[in-house]
Amino acid sequence: MKYSFANRIYSLQSSAVRDILKVVNQEGVISFAGGLPDDQLFPLEGIEEAFAKVFASGKHALQYMETEGYLPLREVILERMSRKGITNYTTKDVMLTTGSQQVIDLFSRVMLNPGDVILTEDPTYLAALQVFKSYEARVIGVASDEDGMIPEDLAHKIKEYKPKCVYVVPTFSNPAGKVWSLERRKQLLQAAHKHNIVVLEDDPYGDLQFNREETYAPLAALDDGTCVLYTSTFSKTAVPALRTGWVAGPFQIVRMMSQAKQANDLHSNSLSQQALYHFCTGFDMDGHINRLIAEYEKRMNVMYRCLKEANLPGLKLTKPKGGMFFWLELDEHVNTTLLLPEAVSRGVAYVPGEPFFATLPKTNALRLNFSHPTIEKIESGITIMTELFKESLQKEVIYS
Amino acid sequence: MKYSFANRIYSLQSSAVRDILKVVNQEGVISFAGGLPDDQLFPLEGIEEAFAKVFASGKHALQYMETEGYLPLREVILERMSRKGITNYTTKDVMLTTGSQQVIDLFSRVMLNPGDVILTEDPTYLAALQVFKSYEARVIGVASDEDGMIPEDLAHKIKEYKPKCVYVVPTFSNPAGKVWSLERRKQLLQAAHKHNIVVLEDDPYGDLQFNREETYAPLAALDDGTCVLYTSTFSKTAVPALRTGWVAGPFQIVRMMSQAKQANDLHSNSLSQQALYHFCTGFDMDGHINRLIAEYEKRMNVMYRCLKEANLPGLKLTKPKGGMFFWLELDEHVNTTLLLPEAVSRGVAYVPGEPFFATLPKTNALRLNFSHPTIEKIESGITIMTELFKESLQKEVIYS
Repeated sequence: MKYSFANRIYSLQSSAVRDILKVVNQEGVISFAGGLPDDQLFPLEGIEEAFAKVFASGKHALQYMETEGYLPLREVILERMSRKGITNYTTKDVMLTTGSQQVIDLFSRVMLNPGDVILTEDPTYLAALQVFKSYEARVIGVASDEDGMIPEDLAHKIKEYKPKCVYVVPTFSNPAGKVWSLERRKQLLQAAHKHNIVVLEDDPYGDLQFNREETYAPLAALDDGTCVLYTSTFSKTAVPALRTGWVAGPFQIVRMMSQAKQANDLHSNSLSQQALYHFCTGFDMDGHINRLIAEYEKRMNVMYRCLKEANLPGLKLTKPKGGMFFWLELDEHVNTTLLLPEAVSRGVAYVPGEPFFATLPKTNALRLNFSHPTIEKIESGITIMTELFKESLQKEVIYS
Repeated sequence: MKYSFANRIYSLQSSAVRDILKVVNQEGVISFAGGLPDDQLFPLEGIEEAFAKVFASGKHALQYMETEGYLPLREVILERMSRKGITNYTTKDVMLTTGSQQVIDLFSRVMLNPGDVILTEDPTYLAALQVFKSYEARVIGVASDEDGMIPEDLAHKIKEYKPKCVYVVPTFSNPAGKVWSLERRKQLLQAAHKHNIVVLEDDPYGDLQFNREETYAPLAALDDGTCVLYTSTFSKTAVPALRTGWVAGPFQIVRMMSQAKQANDLHSNSLSQQALYHFCTGFDMDGHINRLIAEYEKRMNVMYRCLKEANLPGLKLTKPKGGMFFWLELDEHVNTTLLLPEAVSRGVAYVPGEPFFATLPKTNALRLNFSHPTIEKIESGITIMTELFKESLQKEVIYS
């Protein structure tokens, strides 16, 4: 048989980078590539107790559930969001999903016709780019600096492309690890309201904030409840295996997403949703998050020190204020995509910068994860990696 | 703000029937509407023990996992499928999903361009119809009798519409409760091979077979491994809350579906997949399924007796050989869609036949579930419902 696939899937084809990184996990390579939390920090006992409470509640806990998800957990989420200033929503405006990845997918499914334009930061979360492209949307990158999208370029792109949506990770962004300034957040919302643009705010890392004294208001807290869809997840604060994220936003859109979700998978794992409810209410979740923050900040500082000490020529590097990632830009003659196979063969992996760009990829950038590797692995891995980058410059090999 | 949605979502809008049935669950109405297993039969202890084993295996069980799902569970599934004669696949050809609903969705996503034709039985599973339409495919119903699709009409529809895919539930179908004959299964496969058509075989109910002496070979067991995508689920045999289904089929298609799944939700709930592995290997799953079959067959027989005793004029009714549903066709003057609100107000709910049809809906049909209500509720509910249908005929009210 010869199979004829739908056109939309050609953007989903496996990339060379993904194929290399798939091998990494199996071979004892020091990996800075994934976006994984550290297994050793998982609150196994708290999760186990939460499940015991679900089972003790009786057999009905194992039945089918409504598409929107377990109501008491949606109430807990509302309370947790209100502490960040997000107060425009009620339970009917919140839907539980299989991670925040499913929110990006369902959002695209209900909003984007082929050819519709969505704006993103450049660089941005690469799996979001893949989703938008799989719906045959046109993804346009907006020039960004360390404070967020540059207003002049945003205005220019709105005028030129008439976008329907904007996708942003304004707090501890993936991959760039930066935080948008309050002013830039307000400017984006102003433009979005003026031009009838819906904003998808992706906030998986917001709780992993190293300096708890600062406040970074989510866009959803600055909005009037009509313009922003907010998504986050329990994957980074509790555990990934429960695959539980959520969306909160204007009911008209959330309702449409719930109808799309019904077609997609009826509902997400309801046992995990019930367990998360008990986990959030019967366990010191905030204390746990503080322990995560302390450990991740320590690892980030070690990685920062190692990167600084390596004296990489032309290095541009910002110290992250939270999240899980460093973003590095190197001398323009270092091609991180072409160097990846050699790095892996020397025992270290990273994600080259190219796939994070919507429009004009930089070949001299890369993303490093600091939450999963131990401090020892960070020290030896950064040494191997930076030596390779320096060698590639000394050899005056120019890849292009 | 004014929201402008994607065109594809207009097929997903809530229907009047769905709105009525949503109310049913909240009001103590006797419901024959859902497709739910009975909570009271759930193997709670077995599931609880299985989770305990996962937690005992250590913290890594809570980490992210590969998109295709937990490998040891895929091995268990291969072994269980081989007992049905499905032997063409290896673990790489099997992917775990959030229920079999997600298989229908991912299959459509990778196969169907807008305007592509997919053939279905008429009537067929209504949530599958919604998915196909949400990808803007053209769904064409093939005339079916109690043995399956009628070969002449299948040949005619293939010639006229040049379909890319066929979707069928050949064993204890939803909604019609019937079983395809072996001959019809072979005829469908022959036609599919000849015309390069991919077949999606949906088999959620295959294990719920009342007469264990008969054998109903799945299409995937009759095929050479190139033409059929087979999907099933643990929702009816273990519990729904784990939301674990699977697809098995030609690697080229399964691989494409796994790339689509990566965009959709990265991976399904991996904790449940690990628990199901322990459940299938450490618990007498087959004994449990036999207990389900015995209880559901008893309920089916009670419903059959009640329906026969009611002497509904013009009733067409086949006794199901397995699964969860009766399909009724009544005197053509009984409009089951229009009568539903009155039925609900009298305390009983069913699903009218109309939404199950791809092409020409029958207004005098309905689907009844017998696995969820108790025997007492079946007896009183069928009495209320059949009296209403008889009344509507006596009044000579003709709805059209």
